[in-house]
Amino acid sequence: MATAFTHINGQNFISTLHRSNHCRPSGGPIRVTMAQKSSYWTSINDDIDAHLRRVITIREPFSVFEPMHHLTFAAPETTAPALCIASCELVGGRRELAIAAASALHLMHAASYLHEHIPLTDQPRANSPPRPGPTFGPNIELLTGDGMIPFGLELLAKSNNLDDDDEHSDRILQVIIELTRAIGSQGVVNGQYIQAQCDESNPSVGKAGSTRIVTDKKGTELHACGAACGAILGGGKEKEIEKLRKYGFYAGTIQKMSKLEDVEKNREVIEEMRRLALKELEYFDEEKVEPISSFINV
Amino acid sequence: MATAFTHINGQNFISTLHRSNHCRPSGGPIRVTMAQKSSYWTSINDDIDAHLRRVITIREPFSVFEPMHHLTFAAPETTAPALCIASCELVGGRRELAIAAASALHLMHAASYLHEHIPLTDQPRANSPPRPGPTFGPNIELLTGDGMIPFGLELLAKSNNLDDDDEHSDRILQVIIELTRAIGSQGVVNGQYIQAQCDESNPSVGKAGSTRIVTDKKGTELHACGAACGAILGGGKEKEIEKLRKYGFYAGTIQKMSKLEDVEKNREVIEEMRRLALKELEYFDEEKVEPISSFINV
Repeated sequence: MATAFTHINGQNFISTLHRSNHCRPSGGPIRVTMAQKSSYWTSINDDIDAHLRRVITIREPFSVFEPMHHLTFAAPETTAPALCIASCELVGGRRELAIAAASALHLMHAASYLHEHIPLTDQPRANSPPRPGPTFGPNIELLTGDGMIPFGLELLAKSNNLDDDDEHSDRILQVIIELTRAIGSQGVVNGQYIQAQCDESNPSVGKAGSTRIVTDKKGTELHACGAACGAILGGGKEKEIEKLRKYGFYAGTIQKMSKLEDVEKNREVIEEMRRLALKELEYFDEEKVEPISSFINV
Repeated sequence: MATAFTHINGQNFISTLHRSNHCRPSGGPIRVTMAQKSSYWTSINDDIDAHLRRVITIREPFSVFEPMHHLTFAAPETTAPALCIASCELVGGRRELAIAAASALHLMHAASYLHEHIPLTDQPRANSPPRPGPTFGPNIELLTGDGMIPFGLELLAKSNNLDDDDEHSDRILQVIIELTRAIGSQGVVNGQYIQAQCDESNPSVGKAGSTRIVTDKKGTELHACGAACGAILGGGKEKEIEKLRKYGFYAGTIQKMSKLEDVEKNREVIEEMRRLALKELEYFDEEKVEPISSFINV
């Protein structure tokens, strides 16, 4: 996740900051300073990064772990894993309870990115930046993507020993259902399907018509899911889980939209999303929500 | 686990065979008739088939479930799912406790088959029979394979409500670890890697040299895993699980070898595998092992 901070700390973020002095709702209950944002998200992302590097060392079978080690960090940033941990901490859970789920989310994102960028799949990649790090050829990259998802779920299932709480294994199973649905039939894969079908059947009309749903499915689904998973693992109540799922949905949409080229055209929608997101957080202790709310200051 | 078995099946094993020709017991304690085989395995396979057809109906999102419905049944049969259920029943578990795991095993096998048979992956398919049913183009078939594995694991995680036993959710998590390892870094994907790398680097030598390990990884691993998973879900003890894992390994190897063109050349090895397999079953009640032992009468 070396690239993960370029967005937060890079040009986009700085310029958004200047603008947001005027646009941010002045009367919201939540005020977040830059210092909080950078230190909180940096510490979460550092922990996820360290965890991934520890569990995906280059070891036998080398044919699996060497490409996986490199390709795990080849995908562009996603903030869904960090949101998972922030969500766990908001409901009072320890960070380590959510670190395996956050790593699984990162691996799912990386796998989906890999499969979209295998040269032979003729997926559109007009706006993709050049991929950092080594490449391994289409066969190995296809298989690395195949291996990442089960590996992420294996990490998660193994994290059962982190808590003596009787309910912890039930929570992990609930999170596995969340993640497999988000990556599979209802989420990322479905988004890719729609994109693949639109591209195949009608390149011009299809692409425009499907942008919204594909964006929703592939990015926001993973954010909504990540936030819900963190709340589940932290021992959150049903209502807290659903509030954070919605928060994740809005936060993921804001992240996605703020990266589009025509971000200025969407400024109003982004502000509305931000308002809705903050509304979900009103349910929680005001003093506890500051870290997670910094997520939507893009 | 994988490498331990590879060791058993490598050169060492063959030389052991020659020595053991004289030591082989002339008649094991277990005799199985063909009639038993057909009725027991038919009933299991019918149940798995019915379960898969019930859970993968053609429904929304159609883009996902229509191809998945058809492609689930496009892969050639594998006996690993049935072995999972037989194993569960041998240790005293109800069939329904293992049906979701058996379905997940089938979906993993189907996904691996699909990804090997996408026209663009340049995998060898010299001996593949023509695939039955409709085809959907490379993009959709790639994504359907991507979707099958999480969908199978979702089914499994959801089967947590089948038993009030406190240990049931821990058992499901244990099975998820088994399945994700068998499909991922240590199993099927690793086997495919080795095949892909051998094919790429040295088509002639590579292919011959890798046949054995690829066969082990892709077929027998899933059988060993399936048998172990069934025993776990049926509430088997540690020793029962490990005995059945080994039985599954031998059974899977027998299944694989009996399908090779030069089956007659391997007759002796198959017989030795059968002897070793039956030896693992001696640990169990003699009257209970008849159904599962019919599995190796190929």
